[in-house]
Amino acid sequence: MKNNKDIDILISEVGPRDGLQSVKATLPTALKRQWICALADSGLREVEVGSFVSPKLLPQMADAAELVAHARALPGLFVTALVPNLKGAEAAFNAGVQKITLPISVSEPHSLSNIRKTHDEVFNEVRAVVALRNERFPGVEIEAGLSTAFGCTIQGVVPEDDVLRMALLMAELGVDEVGLADTVGYANPVQVRRLFTRLRQALGGLAGSAHFHNTRGQGLANVIAALEAGVTTLDASQGGIGGCPYAPGASGNIVTEDLVWLLESMGLRTGVDIERLLAAREWLRQGLPDEPLYGFIADAGVGKHFTYAKKDA
Amino acid sequence: MKNNKDIDILISEVGPRDGLQSVKATLPTALKRQWICALADSGLREVEVGSFVSPKLLPQMADAAELVAHARALPGLFVTALVPNLKGAEAAFNAGVQKITLPISVSEPHSLSNIRKTHDEVFNEVRAVVALRNERFPGVEIEAGLSTAFGCTIQGVVPEDDVLRMALLMAELGVDEVGLADTVGYANPVQVRRLFTRLRQALGGLAGSAHFHNTRGQGLANVIAALEAGVTTLDASQGGIGGCPYAPGASGNIVTEDLVWLLESMGLRTGVDIERLLAAREWLRQGLPDEPLYGFIADAGVGKHFTYAKKDA
Repeated sequence: MKNNKDIDILISEVGPRDGLQSVKATLPTALKRQWICALADSGLREVEVGSFVSPKLLPQMADAAELVAHARALPGLFVTALVPNLKGAEAAFNAGVQKITLPISVSEPHSLSNIRKTHDEVFNEVRAVVALRNERFPGVEIEAGLSTAFGCTIQGVVPEDDVLRMALLMAELGVDEVGLADTVGYANPVQVRRLFTRLRQALGGLAGSAHFHNTRGQGLANVIAALEAGVTTLDASQGGIGGCPYAPGASGNIVTEDLVWLLESMGLRTGVDIERLLAAREWLRQGLPDEPLYGFIADAGVGKHFTYAKKDA
Repeated sequence: MKNNKDIDILISEVGPRDGLQSVKATLPTALKRQWICALADSGLREVEVGSFVSPKLLPQMADAAELVAHARALPGLFVTALVPNLKGAEAAFNAGVQKITLPISVSEPHSLSNIRKTHDEVFNEVRAVVALRNERFPGVEIEAGLSTAFGCTIQGVVPEDDVLRMALLMAELGVDEVGLADTVGYANPVQVRRLFTRLRQALGGLAGSAHFHNTRGQGLANVIAALEAGVTTLDASQGGIGGCPYAPGASGNIVTEDLVWLLESMGLRTGVDIERLLAAREWLRQGLPDEPLYGFIADAGVGKHFTYAKKDA
């Protein structure tokens, strides 16, 4: 959703999907609804509300369709969902989602281990999803989220040429946007700047969002590099929820609260009110009392002299 | 200490000073000695071992002279200390320190509240310290560390022109370097890039280190901006110790371990071995069991495919 004239950077809140799918406990649907309400109320314009995946695999995501309907009723909110395959896409489209993200592993070993599909099988799935959208749901956007774009725990180094080749192929297959994801927290700012610059050169307006995990605490440093490369959509999750089973203390996505402070203090308008965003944490705290919430702004506050970005600031 | 031909960025480890002076408990001298040893053994080239301040004010720093002597015996280590006044400078010089940092508040209200001195009184102190150095300790370097350079909890906004004026004055008074400190975690990358660029334009080779606090989680993002402005010396503290009494959970300085990962992964050589640096945390854990240690690399590890920067990488 790129036609927000009153903001400079679109923050796509992925906590209800990326965060909640990574924690063991399931946040009850009623609390998810309240949480998504509070996120929208803070001024966030886009929320990824869930994943249309088999509830056997991810029971935490079983209420995705209900949450899409709920979120669609909130004024001004753009509602997205993750979709791993054609079946999920059809369910998401029928639920009324405005955009889907298809996770595409650049690393084929990761694809095989993660969704048990070869690249060719993935490409066929993308073709089918695009065809379905074109035929029956022409208003819905499709983003390919290239995972392992900055390195893979299985394959190791992922060549940048492979990332670019995959991005171009996705564009050929008819997706509307191609984003890059640092799935395992391997990215550094030099790499981020180079790869997003190449993505923009190759795809122009189809170059999409940056999705960083904060596993090694490098998330906001990578944001600076992404901004320099022209990225205008950043994924983040409230409280950085999610984390990683093999890295205790290492948070999930970059923390929305800290990201808003960074951007606004740099003069980049996000549309988000930090106090209201902090208030939304209470739903997580209530529903997932054992889950650590990350981020510095929640503890330190915005500071006595913080001001929000203004137009032409 | 700028003549390290085999590194690109000098990390000045300030944990034994900035970190330990901010925690209530006192790390026993024997453990401080072991810790400093371990820090040097990790490849760190510069350590600020303490503060030459009245032990009534900061009993945690009472062993500064002993620690200087201890650290001077470690091969390859450059030994620095914080010094608030002439009395402290003389003690530090006599102890054998190779460099002192004079904290100079750009904000006069902060200066009055922090060390009960007007700017004029501070300038007289700087003159006296420089005269003493020139006369009796000509080999010792003096850095002015401009605190509240990015904003002040008391004064509020600190005009950049005031920072530049103070920097030029310090150069006139005869210090060898002028660094900028974000004392309260207010800095953002746009401001950091602009102010360090102006500092370099004004002072050339006398432009010194960047000292960031991670109060709002923005430390490494600010590092990226500082690097872009040509900064080559970065202060950091192991485990980000220190914190802030009014911001529970908000760490002190930027975390050395995470900073090394950032720089090395960007192709910038620090000379530091991360595994050995992580091992040094054990002394802190042993001596300050109730003090939280921060940082992501300690939990997540460097990652399976991490490689250190190489020359001409």
